[in-house]
Amino acid sequence: MSPSGPVPNPRVVYARAPSGLPIPGETTIYDPTPTIDINHASLNGGILVKTLVLSPDPYMRKRMRPTDVNTYFPVFEPGQIIAGSGVGVVVRSEMDEYAAGDYVYIDRTMKWQHYSTYPPTDPIDKIRNDYGLPLSTFVGVNGVPGQSAYHALKAFGNAKKGETIYVSTGAGAVGSVVCQLAKLWGLKVIASAGTDEKVRYLKDELKVDVAFNYKTVPVEEVLAEHPLDIYWDNVGGRVLETAIDAARPGARIIMCGYISEYSSQPRYGIKNMDLAIWKCLSFHGFLAWPMHKANPDAFFDEMPRLVAEGKIKYREQVTRGLENADRALREIFTGENFGKAVVIVADQQV
Amino acid sequence: MSPSGPVPNPRVVYARAPSGLPIPGETTIYDPTPTIDINHASLNGGILVKTLVLSPDPYMRKRMRPTDVNTYFPVFEPGQIIAGSGVGVVVRSEMDEYAAGDYVYIDRTMKWQHYSTYPPTDPIDKIRNDYGLPLSTFVGVNGVPGQSAYHALKAFGNAKKGETIYVSTGAGAVGSVVCQLAKLWGLKVIASAGTDEKVRYLKDELKVDVAFNYKTVPVEEVLAEHPLDIYWDNVGGRVLETAIDAARPGARIIMCGYISEYSSQPRYGIKNMDLAIWKCLSFHGFLAWPMHKANPDAFFDEMPRLVAEGKIKYREQVTRGLENADRALREIFTGENFGKAVVIVADQQV
Repeated sequence: MSPSGPVPNPRVVYARAPSGLPIPGETTIYDPTPTIDINHASLNGGILVKTLVLSPDPYMRKRMRPTDVNTYFPVFEPGQIIAGSGVGVVVRSEMDEYAAGDYVYIDRTMKWQHYSTYPPTDPIDKIRNDYGLPLSTFVGVNGVPGQSAYHALKAFGNAKKGETIYVSTGAGAVGSVVCQLAKLWGLKVIASAGTDEKVRYLKDELKVDVAFNYKTVPVEEVLAEHPLDIYWDNVGGRVLETAIDAARPGARIIMCGYISEYSSQPRYGIKNMDLAIWKCLSFHGFLAWPMHKANPDAFFDEMPRLVAEGKIKYREQVTRGLENADRALREIFTGENFGKAVVIVADQQV
Repeated sequence: MSPSGPVPNPRVVYARAPSGLPIPGETTIYDPTPTIDINHASLNGGILVKTLVLSPDPYMRKRMRPTDVNTYFPVFEPGQIIAGSGVGVVVRSEMDEYAAGDYVYIDRTMKWQHYSTYPPTDPIDKIRNDYGLPLSTFVGVNGVPGQSAYHALKAFGNAKKGETIYVSTGAGAVGSVVCQLAKLWGLKVIASAGTDEKVRYLKDELKVDVAFNYKTVPVEEVLAEHPLDIYWDNVGGRVLETAIDAARPGARIIMCGYISEYSSQPRYGIKNMDLAIWKCLSFHGFLAWPMHKANPDAFFDEMPRLVAEGKIKYREQVTRGLENADRALREIFTGENFGKAVVIVADQQV
């Protein structure tokens, strides 16, 4: 049963734009003072959700900028509660689709606060957890990172057994699923990462064919030996250019992330796009959310089962407590974290 | 009947790499001295073809380079006969598919010589001229330029009535067909060209919705008013970057040519490829020949009829005589020609 009367409702507030990395306590502030009466808070036709898991993600840095800088992502306004993706449990609902006790994923608009309401127009997805997997997996291997890998590799990869795929940031939340799906589908998998520990993980745990540390081994040397039919691009910039050079005729380039550019100035220019013509290359940029919402059953029918069976492995970098969430966000940019960053805000009881 | 004994067989020989534009008489040499006995020349299982129409094309400049410069196109070797695309008539055949009198198109390996033999492995296409159209149209609106427009716009455009397409070099051999097909399919067509005469042609003859001279009107200003769902790219470089900025979410970019870079150094770098992700853009590079060979009937069932009915218009810049072919090649780079450049080498009698 829900408690009666107001309960604490801590939150993380955006204070100002960082110049480099976000600084916990300065650019974002943990604020323990708000309260909420969860039995009487107005829902306005939506749902009240208790936050369980938050997902610090690189694109969030793009929202932390001076309000007069115009980019594709909406800016955070100072004083606003930080928002990202996450998993929660429905406490109360005025929507037919959701009932108290349902677990939901909310894409990019989940507030960094213990309890929050969401209007029906928000991107909400009911979670199908047929195998009783940890809820944190629904922001990782069973969530948007896994969905990105699954839907885009199916839709754009046109993968044929025996072909070669190169996955940059192969040990990351998306890349590790791409590597494993590609192996399951009979591809030769080349993957890179930025630490020797991650390279070992790629080889020993994910069983990729070739893994290398891009900080010590030039990408162009590896790709010269293993020309690619598919490039799964998580980084953009100079590596994308190198992959275009190394692509076989007819190769498909799946553009999932551009992390090389999130904080670099001036921006790197791709100088060999003309090869797209002579080699008949295709490039596919995508966002996972609309692809998943168009066919959620395909994903939930397959991925959680593969995870439950141990055919798709995953790693998490777990942080506990909303008060530590902004530190977890900072850490994903330092390259030190290993595995999908998740913040456990609360356990599953309402 | 064919004459008996040797007949003159003039040719154009590649002499050396130009530093800028090709120079007729210096980088290419017209050589009237060879002869051929067309009744006895050895076919080695192939066909002997009398050259009727040649197609000077921009990519040929890419083959005219020092032999130690490695690019995607095979280099011309000094002393080699210039080769490009063209139409001819079969004089003798040792292949089942072709008989004397058949008209054939030969893609990129047709020799700039009056009579030549071609092995069965060469890219040969039998011409279907159901409407008795001029043979020169089979290197233009009914040939690879038309095929490029037709096959790629169908395969990659995903065109929906009411959408907007921007066509760079809209008055060119490919662009003009793209503009007209797009109008027939109910698209709003924005097109650019480099002279006011071509802009008038786009407006008055091809009936595009918006035409502008990119040398006097900034592309970004026009596209800001008319954001695009499809970009047909014939130029690459900075215009491609501008089109990516102006693309609507889900836009398709069809990469047909990269003429801005054929002679520029240093190469222009595309700095906004990350927008491909946030806007879910796709890019499709292609070569027309394999697309056409996979389904030649689709094209020949439709395009020559549209041309015969006047629904697809075309312009040609006609040069007569093999001795003037290298001059025609030079002119396509000066921007002064208007319409598909064709060289009429001979009339249709064998």
